[in-house]
This record gives sequence, structure tokens and C-alpha cells, in this order.
Amino acid sequence: MIKKTQLKSGHFKNRPTHNRKKITKVKTFDHGKLKIIILGGNEEVGRNMTILEYENDIIIIDMGIQFPEEDMPGIDFIIPNIEYLKGKKKNIRGVVITHGHLDHIGAIPYLISDLGNPVIYSAPLTLGLIKKRHEEFKDAHPLNLQAVTTDDKLTLGCFKVSFFAVSHNIPASMGIIVDTPLGKVVHSGDFKLDFDGSVRDMPEVSKIAGLGTENVLALLSDSTNAPHSGHQISESEIQTNLFNIIRNAHGRVIIGTFASLLNRLQQIFDAAEKLNKKILIDGYSMKTNVEIAHQLGYLSFKKDTFITEKQLKEYPDNRIVICCTGAQGEDRAVLMRIVNREHRFLEIGKNDTVVFSSSVIPGNERSVQRLKDSLYRQGAEVIHYQMMDVHAGGHAKKEDLKLMINLVNPKYFVPIEGNHSFLHIHAKWAAEVGIDPKNIFIADNGQVMEFTKLGGKLTNKRIPADYVFVDGLGVGDVSHIVLRDRKMMSEDGMIVAIATISAKTGALVHSPDIISRGFVYMKENKKLIEKARAKIKQIMKSNNPKTMANDMFIKNKIRNQLGNLLYQETERRPMVLPVIIEV
Amino acid sequence: MIKKTQLKSGHFKNRPTHNRKKITKVKTFDHGKLKIIILGGNEEVGRNMTILEYENDIIIIDMGIQFPEEDMPGIDFIIPNIEYLKGKKKNIRGVVITHGHLDHIGAIPYLISDLGNPVIYSAPLTLGLIKKRHEEFKDAHPLNLQAVTTDDKLTLGCFKVSFFAVSHNIPASMGIIVDTPLGKVVHSGDFKLDFDGSVRDMPEVSKIAGLGTENVLALLSDSTNAPHSGHQISESEIQTNLFNIIRNAHGRVIIGTFASLLNRLQQIFDAAEKLNKKILIDGYSMKTNVEIAHQLGYLSFKKDTFITEKQLKEYPDNRIVICCTGAQGEDRAVLMRIVNREHRFLEIGKNDTVVFSSSVIPGNERSVQRLKDSLYRQGAEVIHYQMMDVHAGGHAKKEDLKLMINLVNPKYFVPIEGNHSFLHIHAKWAAEVGIDPKNIFIADNGQVMEFTKLGGKLTNKRIPADYVFVDGLGVGDVSHIVLRDRKMMSEDGMIVAIATISAKTGALVHSPDIISRGFVYMKENKKLIEKARAKIKQIMKSNNPKTMANDMFIKNKIRNQLGNLLYQETERRPMVLPVIIEV
Repeated sequence: MIKKTQLKSGHFKNRPTHNRKKITKVKTFDHGKLKIIILGGNEEVGRNMTILEYENDIIIIDMGIQFPEEDMPGIDFIIPNIEYLKGKKKNIRGVVITHGHLDHIGAIPYLISDLGNPVIYSAPLTLGLIKKRHEEFKDAHPLNLQAVTTDDKLTLGCFKVSFFAVSHNIPASMGIIVDTPLGKVVHSGDFKLDFDGSVRDMPEVSKIAGLGTENVLALLSDSTNAPHSGHQISESEIQTNLFNIIRNAHGRVIIGTFASLLNRLQQIFDAAEKLNKKILIDGYSMKTNVEIAHQLGYLSFKKDTFITEKQLKEYPDNRIVICCTGAQGEDRAVLMRIVNREHRFLEIGKNDTVVFSSSVIPGNERSVQRLKDSLYRQGAEVIHYQMMDVHAGGHAKKEDLKLMINLVNPKYFVPIEGNHSFLHIHAKWAAEVGIDPKNIFIADNGQVMEFTKLGGKLTNKRIPADYVFVDGLGVGDVSHIVLRDRKMMSEDGMIVAIATISAKTGALVHSPDIISRGFVYMKENKKLIEKARAKIKQIMKSNNPKTMANDMFIKNKIRNQLGNLLYQETERRPMVLPVIIEV
Repeated sequence: MIKKTQLKSGHFKNRPTHNRKKITKVKTFDHGKLKIIILGGNEEVGRNMTILEYENDIIIIDMGIQFPEEDMPGIDFIIPNIEYLKGKKKNIRGVVITHGHLDHIGAIPYLISDLGNPVIYSAPLTLGLIKKRHEEFKDAHPLNLQAVTTDDKLTLGCFKVSFFAVSHNIPASMGIIVDTPLGKVVHSGDFKLDFDGSVRDMPEVSKIAGLGTENVLALLSDSTNAPHSGHQISESEIQTNLFNIIRNAHGRVIIGTFASLLNRLQQIFDAAEKLNKKILIDGYSMKTNVEIAHQLGYLSFKKDTFITEKQLKEYPDNRIVICCTGAQGEDRAVLMRIVNREHRFLEIGKNDTVVFSSSVIPGNERSVQRLKDSLYRQGAEVIHYQMMDVHAGGHAKKEDLKLMINLVNPKYFVPIEGNHSFLHIHAKWAAEVGIDPKNIFIADNGQVMEFTKLGGKLTNKRIPADYVFVDGLGVGDVSHIVLRDRKMMSEDGMIVAIATISAKTGALVHSPDIISRGFVYMKENKKLIEKARAKIKQIMKSNNPKTMANDMFIKNKIRNQLGNLLYQETERRPMVLPVIIEV
């Protein structure tokens, strides 16, 4: 639990006064030029980070992580590449965060020190989540946080920054208006336009519509759901369905969702209270998120709605609703621990109804399937979004996206946040509502967009934007070579061939040692191992002792010939690691 | 290309006459008992295989492969476990195959010899595909194949077998009726009920409906799409959409689909012919499948509809339709080779429209996404099933499944073909249409269902049904230990620590050798490697030379202590392989 005092405004330090007079080197060719660069999020879903640069002023919007793809085994996550900003620390006037999801805040602990600890501006909830996460990093430098409301206006160097509320599935999500010397740039953040949702999460439509007459220079807009036709489902429908499920359940209702899907949790709390049911929350991250949001006034519930582990037995099953993490089939999250019977106090009973109230992140389909299978096997009824609308995505679909473009009415349009194909599809919708296709920029990560008084263009200039991998304590130390090796070993295993030779004669001192892992089970493949040993002996014998010093040559010979032998015998290609030890 | 003569009936040998009189050992407790055992396909999608056993007669329905899950790196595929059948070869009266997809025929080359080469019965197309695949296996024993039509009746031991046509997305798909001494058992095969599809693929509804009055003992029915509500889309809708796409395209249309989705290909051929466009087929498996199906009369087209690579230039782009493999993002299939610019003669042009006319197999989502991104990047327009109905699955959905149960009107119902949760959901629909829940058997792979004159039950008896992995030339030689090692190495790599010691004194002869792969990039982590070396030296020094012979003890010490050191320094857990060489 985090203490209330930690979130008081005193902890959010004031914006440092940048001594801008010292800055002298204005490159003339950059005079009067606005650069917009998407550092991450434009070739993937995740690691969102955008920079706006005008002469000596830079602001950053969002700093998120991306979850690894299946060809990146062992990687924890991927963060944006900030090489371009490293020499420009002194120009950074602030970091503005749209909302508190990890793909928008998760990279802060890794990057903020290297950027000179600029002030981070966002809504109190978002800052609360940033702060909580930061505490998990030992020895991390304290953050400079400054809370804003959607009515605040900030002056960050030459930029004037204001905000508008959007609907998403975490409270306090905002779009950002950056008034630059060349006109307004609007960044939508993650958004949907849910006019029928709860009042807690209504978009500030009048502000958005007002932009339509303000000659907006460019709109950068969320493409996550651009490939989906129609409108995003309203949260009010989800609320009704969840209410009915909770009302009709004969036993306990267990709802798995993301720890950060706070709006969904509010719907569940509301339903439970109306139905006089009790809620147990399980999962560390969900608990702390609920506490933070409640303390800051973003979630409302009666104190006695929540029960503890010990109180579970005091209520009949049909008065219990359990909210927990793990709807993605994550190994160590609550739902998986329950079905694996590794949970401290929860197990699945015959009358339980388990609801998966979140979409499945691509790549998790099979883990989620296994989780569902296990739940059925243990007697639960399972309800997921394919069977009933128990989840609405947080992102605008085709028709919502077109409305946003119509309302903001920008001169230039930049689809952001999504795979390359999502951006293309979003661009198509923009053209359909009248944006001149020449003014639609489908930018890659790191590709520089430049605007002057004469107009804007998507240039061919690129700043470094390649992946930076986080693996354990290492940031950026896992290279593509390391990943390639991991992948190779995962497919056919590896074999270490050790030849111990006499330094004097170059002859083998004893029979070569062979160790294999992930290739074949050695005990059951003695013949094959013997053949491998014979092959090494043959190679070593045929080798001219005079060239013995040439380790690389003989190693390559072993690697190739042994590799070929093993392929012929097994049609597998394990990694072969030759080792020559001279004694 | 395969020669016509290879497919003539002369090649399909007659059913061998089993000398049933020799069989004497009828276990009395199995007297009058029918066993139904699903060997594969009831805990997964794939490796479908079912056996029916009555006293000394066994028939097998389907013998398919399953594609590996993501926790099975390097595995080519998984086949059913036939341990139970190995002692019962002489009882096997035949193998009946429902249709020619790999999850129903793919395991034949691996298993059929071990089963004593029983006769395989199916439609000519299915047998053609089985035969084609078998030819890829060198030294494989020739198959005993016997073609049937859906009007044929077979006597296989005590079983009388007949057939009914079903719609699916490969021609000649059949359901199977097995008349046993205890009543009829109906196996649906993979099916949908598409009454509006092409006449080539109409289900034999009257036969199915006729079963309703024949006191069917048990219906085993396809659960693949049981979690989906409503009816499966009709192929006629897909045909209309594909027709419109092909008609309206400004340039070439490139349609990616499965090589075995022959009905889809027929739709494309029909559309192209109506629109006076030309077709190029690329992809070895698709070409051979089309040839086999055409030769056997299952696909119809005009000869001059097809063009070769060389003729491509003779036609304007808007008269060209290319059908190819690779819509799952498979590495070496045509679409991926095109976008990787590794294709011999095709590359993406600005006016190309690429259609993904297949669903995405779970686990392939991200490869397909990358493929789409690359296509957009190269200028193509991409159409996939999320945007427009350009694919209909081959499986019945909820309402179709209920209709099937109503028509067949069985006493017992056994959901088959699907993950455990699919079976549960299918069972729910069966109960909804009036099957007594006590008579619905949700069986695991290998779990024995027994029927006598008194009734049926799902017993707790289980025969071996665990995974048999195929990896390269190895069948069943990759164990869970090998897989666990592959997985471990893929996540954090591995490190080999070699201590060369004197056989006399037990002391290190020289500094320990350290090799790592997939862990850290060694050149950039010299300090860490030095620490690891120092740790090994320390362990070897502290070791009592008298106990030196106890290799295991010292190896474990290195494994644990070096592992801990590396975890402290990196928070990674590479596999540590200690090697001690005595000289």
C-alpha cells in the first residue's frame, strides 16, 4: 500500500528553470523549423514515445515499453531508443504523459535519468502510477512530477501545452494540444469516443470540436483499432452484461482482467454494490492500482464492499465477486496460480463463473486457451469476449477515428500507435474524410517530419530508433547475435565438442568429450555420440600439427563437419560449439 | 507433377483378407462390449484419431498431425500415440479417413507400418493426397488404399461402414456411419452445413436426417468452432466478395490461402473465368493439390485460364490473379518469399491487391501481422478477413452444431476435435437441444468409452495418449527433458565452464575456459566473465583433492555457485554446463 502523503503535491517538484539564455548554437537550417519524430509506437503496438522539437526546445510525449515478440526469447521488454536526445538534454522542457498504461509510462525508469530528469506532467492518477512503478527500481533517482488537470495550460519553452479528456479504459486519459510557433499539434493519446459510457470517463467533446476552427496544423491520432470497422462498443453495454452475469451467477464470479483496466473494475464495483455482493481483489498490481486510484478520487466504492481472504467464508458463494489478474494466461498471475493449485487460498469450485474481461494480446492466444481448458476441467463456467460482450477495447474504431479527424479538422494528418499496416489503413480513412493524401504522413519510428511556415513534409532523415532490449538488469546489452543464438539453440539444441590436445604434438590427449543439451537425449543415442566422437578424432588426426595453433581453422572444420554429420543422421541442426584445450 | 497413372484404381490394392478364425483370445469381460477411444484431437486442435473396438475388431478413423505449441521449440509436429494398438495389429480391419487435411491424414506415413499396413479407405481425392504425401517419405512401405464413394458400404469385421457427404473447405469431405453390433456410431468428420454453397460441396442432408429415426447410439461431432455463436458464413458470400475484389482490382490480385483449401481455389478460378482474367498458381503444395484434384474431377477449369511465369508479361496487371501459399506468414511459403524479395519472379507492385483468404491459426498472429506490414510497405493494398468476409471457416458454429445433433438424434453425444473448453461448450449446446447430460461424454485423449446392451459410460480407464514428437528424422526421440533444455537455453542462453585439472593433484592446469551463447555478448562483458572465472578457481581450490573423483559433486557446486553469481550480476539464469577435464 502506498501512503497518501507520498502523493501530495509537495512531492511533485516544480518545473526546473532552464537557463535558456546560455543556449547559443541555433543551427540556421533549423531556424523556424518544427520537427515531429515518433521514437516508438509507429511500427508496433507499444513503446510509445514522440518528440516535438522547435529550435532549442524539445518536449516529449509518453515513454512506454513494448512486450517482446516471439522471436525475442528471454527479453523482458523493449524500450525506445533515445540516442538522438542524449546530446540535447538541456533542451528538454518537459515530458507529458497521456495516461497511465505501461506502453506509455513503462520506459520512464530506464530513460529519465539519461534525459537529465526533466519534469513529468500528467494527471494525478497517471503520476501516482508512475511513482509507484518507480519505487520498484532500487537506487533510481527521484522523479520530478507535476500534476495537471485538463484545464491547465503549461508553457514549456516555446510550446504551450493544454489538454482534453478522452475515454479510454483507464481514468484520467488525455489528449494533448501543443501550441507551437507554427500552429497547433494535437496528439490524441490512446482514445475512444464513448458518449454513452460512465460520466467518469466522458471525452471533452466540446474542446475537441473547438479545435476544428483553430487551424490545427497536425493531428497525431491513435491507430490501434484502425483495421476494425464500425464504432467501438460502448462501456455501457459491457456494464449491462457484467451486471447480468454477476446477478445471475449461482456461485462465485471470478473476473480476470488487466490490473490497469480501472474503468472496468469500477463497473464491477458498481454492479456488486447494487446487487449487495462482496468483492475480493487479488493480485498485487491490481490492489495497488485500486488503492492509488481510490485515494486520488478516481474510483469510488463503499468501504464495506471489499472483503479480505478471511472474510470469504462468512458469505455464501453467490455473494462473492473476485477481481484478479491473469486473463492473458500469464504464468505467475492470479488466475494461472489458481488453476495450477498454487494459490494460497483460492481454488476453482463447481459453481464458479470465470469471466475473461479483456481482449487477448496477440501472442497470448494459446496460453489463454490452456487457461480456459484448465478452468473447464476444474468445473468452472467460462465466459469470454467471443461469447458475449464482456470487454470493450479502449481504442477508437474506423467510424470513431473518422469523427475525430472531422472534429479536429487538421491540415496534416499523422497516424500513430500501431503496426505499419494499421497506419496505412488509418491513412485511408483520413483520405476518405477529406484530408489531402499529400498531407498524410505515414512515418516510421525515427523518421523526421519537418514543418516550416511554407508547409510540412515527411523527410527521409532518420534518427536512431532501433530496439533497445531490457533483459533482467541489462538494458541494451542483448544484441541480435545473442537473440539469434538463443533462437538457434531453442530449435535444435546445442552440442559442445571438446578436444583436449597436447600443446607439443597437437595430438588428442584422450577421447573427445561431447556434451549436448536440447538436441537428443544422450543416454538413448550412444551410437550417434560415438559417431560424433569418431568424426572429431578423424578431423584432429588429418590435421597438420604445424597449423595446430590456428585454432579458428580447426574449430570451423569441426563445426562444419560435425554439423553435417549430425544433420545427415537426424535432420536437425544443433549449434555446434568446438572447444580445443591445449595441455 | 504426379502422373495420372499413379492415381488409377489399380494402385489402390484390395482389402487384405484377415484370417479372423485364428483369433481366439476374447477376454470375457470385453464380450459384447464396444469401446470408443479418441486417441488424439480431444485436447487440442489436430492429430485427430479415433478407434472403435468391438471384441476382436478394430477400425480407425483418421490419423492426423498436430502443429507444435510455442513451448515445443524445434518440434516439427505431434502425432497420436499408438501404443495401445501395437499388440492388436491383427485386429485392425481398416482405417477410414474423413478428408484430406493434414490434421486427419498427416500421421499415416509415421504410423501405418507399425499398425501392419491395414487398408485405408476414403474418397479418391483424399487417397490421392495421402499417396502424394507418402511419396515424400523415402523407403516407406507402399500403402493399401481403397477408394470409396459416399454410397458405398464396407464390411470391416463386425462393423458396417457407410458415409455421408459434408461441406468443408476441401472437396470429398465425409462423415462416417459405423454400424456396430450395439447400434450406429456417427462420426461427423470436420464439417459445416452450407446449404447455400456451391453444388460441388453440398452436404447430404437427407442421409443425415434419415439417421434421426435409426436409433443412433452415439454421435461424435466436430467442436472446432463450438465457441462461436450463430451460423458459419456461407461460401456463397465469400464467392461474391472475392468476385467483387477480383473485378474491381486496378492491378494484380494476389490471393494467399492454404494449399489444401481447394474449394476456395475453385471459387477463385470461377471468378477469374467469368471476368476473363488469367491465373498463375505458385507454391509447390498448392500446385500438386490442384493437379491431383483436377485429375480426379474435383476441380474444374478451362485449360487456358492458367498461365505460366513466362506468360505473365503477356497480360496487363488487371487481368492477372495469382493464387499462392503463405497466408499464415510461414517462413518459406510464397508470400513471405515475395515480400522478402527472395522470390524467383514475383515482387509486389504499387497496384497489387493482396487478399488473405484464410483464418489465422493461433500462434501465427504476429507473423501474419509482420507480413501485412511488409506488403503495405511495398505498396500493396491488403484485404483480410477482419475487414471483409474473404474467408469462411470450414467448421459448423453453434447453431449448425445444434442442427446436426437434432438431425442425427443420438442417444449418446461425444464432442470431439477441439480443446477441452470447446468440448465443454459443445456439450452445453447438446444439452440445450435435449441430450440427457448424463449421456454426454467429454472424453480426454485416451479415455475409454464403453458401451454394452445396458448402456454406455465414460470410464476412468485410460490408454497411453501422450504426445509423440516428430523432430527431423526422429519420431518420439525428443523427450520433455530435451524440450525443457531448449526452452531454458532460449530464454537466457547457456554458459559452458571448463576446468582442466591434473589427474594427480586435482589442481587446475590453467585458467578455466568459459564459453557462452545467448547469454551476454562476451566481448562486451569481460568483467563478468573474469568474475565467473575467479569463482570457478575459488571452488576448485576449496575442494578437497581427495574427493576430486566425485565429479558430480564438484559439477553441482559449480552449477549452483556460478548460477547464483550470474543471477546476482544480471538477473538472468543461463543454463550452466560445468565440464571437468582430467589430464
